[in-house]
Amino acid sequence: MLNKKEFLYDGKAKEIYATDVADQVLMYYKDDATAYHGVKKSPIRDKGMLNNRISELIFTYLNRKGIPTHFIKRVDDQHQLCHKLSIIPLEFVTRNIIAGALSRRLDIEEGRIPDNPIVEICYKNDDLRDPFVNETHVLGLKIATSQELAFIQNTLLKINELLLDLFNSIGIMLVDFKVEFGRDKDGNILLADEISPDSARFWDKNTRERLDKDRFKRDMGKVEESYRTVLKRLEQALKC
Amino acid sequence: MLNKKEFLYDGKAKEIYATDVADQVLMYYKDDATAYHGVKKSPIRDKGMLNNRISELIFTYLNRKGIPTHFIKRVDDQHQLCHKLSIIPLEFVTRNIIAGALSRRLDIEEGRIPDNPIVEICYKNDDLRDPFVNETHVLGLKIATSQELAFIQNTLLKINELLLDLFNSIGIMLVDFKVEFGRDKDGNILLADEISPDSARFWDKNTRERLDKDRFKRDMGKVEESYRTVLKRLEQALKC
Repeated sequence: MLNKKEFLYDGKAKEIYATDVADQVLMYYKDDATAYHGVKKSPIRDKGMLNNRISELIFTYLNRKGIPTHFIKRVDDQHQLCHKLSIIPLEFVTRNIIAGALSRRLDIEEGRIPDNPIVEICYKNDDLRDPFVNETHVLGLKIATSQELAFIQNTLLKINELLLDLFNSIGIMLVDFKVEFGRDKDGNILLADEISPDSARFWDKNTRERLDKDRFKRDMGKVEESYRTVLKRLEQALKC
Repeated sequence: MLNKKEFLYDGKAKEIYATDVADQVLMYYKDDATAYHGVKKSPIRDKGMLNNRISELIFTYLNRKGIPTHFIKRVDDQHQLCHKLSIIPLEFVTRNIIAGALSRRLDIEEGRIPDNPIVEICYKNDDLRDPFVNETHVLGLKIATSQELAFIQNTLLKINELLLDLFNSIGIMLVDFKVEFGRDKDGNILLADEISPDSARFWDKNTRERLDKDRFKRDMGKVEESYRTVLKRLEQALKC
């Protein structure tokens, strides 16, 4: 493994460490799972390894399709090497099917398909509980520039199309997914964070069974098995 | 007064009645004031008359400047005649200065001026507490068409510019204002609802004194006097 240097950041699901290379970091995928802004918390066996591997497969796929991402390579079971970014404090949630918080917030049944993907932007701040913002807040409060925001929104649509293709091919409905973006040392915007059953909703196309963190949030059991199912199908589709 | 016919709708600050004319309604401006989604509630003396008159002056000004509105004429102290609309269930809040809920939600001090006006859209539903939405919800959930939304957003910017001019000329900072839009029988989009110290924040340019419903919400006193100040200055500016 690369030399793991000083600890940089502790997130809910990952830790970030410096490396020997100034603009590269090691991401450590934890087994800890949290929900409802950290109110519910407990470990899921092998989650770190599973999400590290799932995210590796998805980011490698996106990199090959021309999406700029922070992912460089997986290092071991729970570590991956990434470009060091300055994270833009926004979470972008893309929703192809209504579920979860949106369903409760607008009182719409889970499973309804909107006419177009719904893209929600949240200001990343746990103390404020990640409040909703829109483009006018992002620009008006200088959270990102209009060029950055346009690039991100355009990239998000491409990512969504690519992921819909990928997951459709393995019998999974991509209900929604959350991503973040960051700036590298040259100011390029790269896809950051992870894409995994922790940050996306995956429903089996035939059974509608949930294969994601909702199983943990809602105490449905078979959490680890569901994450393994997603990994196995991705490995088969991507032949690795 | 025109014949006031059957009762159509009871809002928090207004009642709506049918008239002899099929596509015209009477709005009755109540003295009742509410805040925090109806949690705080009590009457303000003369509020109905004051808001009816303030809204008359503002809507007449906007009509003359080419903004299509529902306002036809004031009928008496607490009634005005308006085009009957099917209200689009969205509230549009335009913010020139950070204040109120946005200040609390994003933990930004009141008084900060964003780089551009912030426009927030809420889905009008008291039971759901008017949740935030954005363009992708509005279109994806068929709340309005993309043509309607583009017209509304363009019209909002014009209204904001016109109101900033008007209020600047009477020594008042237009901090923010909330409006609604509706469709008339031919599908035209008209500005609806009211613009008054109930639905807008007005700060005196010199003293920064609040001249709006925040005085009621925050138990600051001189509520009625502040509404009268706004009316008097508007009457002087608009020479009526």
